[in-house]
Amino acid sequence: MAKPVMSTVDKALSLLRHFSVQQPEMGLSELARMAGYDKTTVLRCMTALENNGFIEQDSVSKRYRLGLAPINLARIRERSFPLLAVLQPHVDRLRERTNETSHATVYSSGKLVNAFVSDPDRAIRVSMDPYANLPFHATASGIVVAAHLPPSERAKIVGKWDFEKFTDKTPTSPEAMEPLFAQARKQGFARSDQSYDIDVIGTAVAFFGPTGLPAGAIAVAAVASRFDAELAQTIQQELLTTGRELTMALGGILPTP
Amino acid sequence: MAKPVMSTVDKALSLLRHFSVQQPEMGLSELARMAGYDKTTVLRCMTALENNGFIEQDSVSKRYRLGLAPINLARIRERSFPLLAVLQPHVDRLRERTNETSHATVYSSGKLVNAFVSDPDRAIRVSMDPYANLPFHATASGIVVAAHLPPSERAKIVGKWDFEKFTDKTPTSPEAMEPLFAQARKQGFARSDQSYDIDVIGTAVAFFGPTGLPAGAIAVAAVASRFDAELAQTIQQELLTTGRELTMALGGILPTP
Repeated sequence: MAKPVMSTVDKALSLLRHFSVQQPEMGLSELARMAGYDKTTVLRCMTALENNGFIEQDSVSKRYRLGLAPINLARIRERSFPLLAVLQPHVDRLRERTNETSHATVYSSGKLVNAFVSDPDRAIRVSMDPYANLPFHATASGIVVAAHLPPSERAKIVGKWDFEKFTDKTPTSPEAMEPLFAQARKQGFARSDQSYDIDVIGTAVAFFGPTGLPAGAIAVAAVASRFDAELAQTIQQELLTTGRELTMALGGILPTP
Repeated sequence: MAKPVMSTVDKALSLLRHFSVQQPEMGLSELARMAGYDKTTVLRCMTALENNGFIEQDSVSKRYRLGLAPINLARIRERSFPLLAVLQPHVDRLRERTNETSHATVYSSGKLVNAFVSDPDRAIRVSMDPYANLPFHATASGIVVAAHLPPSERAKIVGKWDFEKFTDKTPTSPEAMEPLFAQARKQGFARSDQSYDIDVIGTAVAFFGPTGLPAGAIAVAAVASRFDAELAQTIQQELLTTGRELTMALGGILPTP
């Protein structure tokens, strides 16, 4: 697929994605190298980002870090469309009932963003990065959300997937996805058996917005070695209930079976 | 002062500022009108912002709202540089001890951003928008932060102020600020007597970062009709203590008196 020429705005915004919990500060050269842009372009972008509060530059070390503008935008978004506040109690209850790591993701502009993670208080558990975007093809959340998109939108997003092979069980082509989508629609949930992480079995249901489109997914990421028929049954029952309740709480519309 | 020509990146980022708790959704024409740009420019900017998760477009109404990307950036920033988590207990204690609305602001890239507000549980109190940028010239927080900047940086930011006249007591020129800066440095706190809101007396101290520069301010916004000598004394004592403690908690350096 031909890559469209990026606008300067795209470049500037994409620079923000290089900052992470693991790497919260960067110098100009480092950032230019990571992004693959020349230093002049990066400097011009960073100046505009700094003028608008998205970036701060340490006055001594001259290294860049994220600014405070995203905090205000995040609070405006959450106060106007309180999604995280609605998700949290459902995810917490799911974790209590299954005693495995539970999480919610939100589908936004073709991406699946981890929104909230709830860890069980036990020594062996799945540990998740609460700040990551999830790959659609390798996770139960991605599969169940894609399965419930209108076919034209699904075709569009599947066309953008890179099908990175995370484990021996990762599906690596659009064709391999079709039966997974069909099964997810039929069952109302998707399961990913060690296709993203070895030793993790994910189960997910979608929740739906007022337009009847999937707004995101809630999921349980369970340790594979203790995943038996009983736990499988508990997880899918709890998820199906939670998915319905969450859709209602969001004023959403469930798909007709 | 001549206004510099804005880059496309500046334009795109400035569009985000039109979204607020009061106005969380907007159509293209409305946004173009508010920003004063032509529709083609706004559409190009919004497409780039949407591709990067900063904006979502409602698939039915076609209206724009803020996306989820800022939430992730805000969490990365707060996890790497946990400023809000440090500020909150200090602001809460200040509210308990003074029984008036307390808040913290952060100085970032020449702006003063409201970071955290704590309301007392009483009927008559100052109500603050926790999402607003504060005007430097009219607020105690702005005055005390500007007062402690190096003279060259202070001259630069004062040159950008618009000196909007909020009340009859708002200072409206750079010259009117000088005695306020000098007094704030001498006392260690600034007071704004109904210069931003009629009926509100603000008192603020700066807190300092590791470079010895002001990182922000903590303040008490008190109802003017009950502001007497005793409350004034309580507020300034509590603030001076809190400012020192907060500076230490941030590994900061206090200015030499």
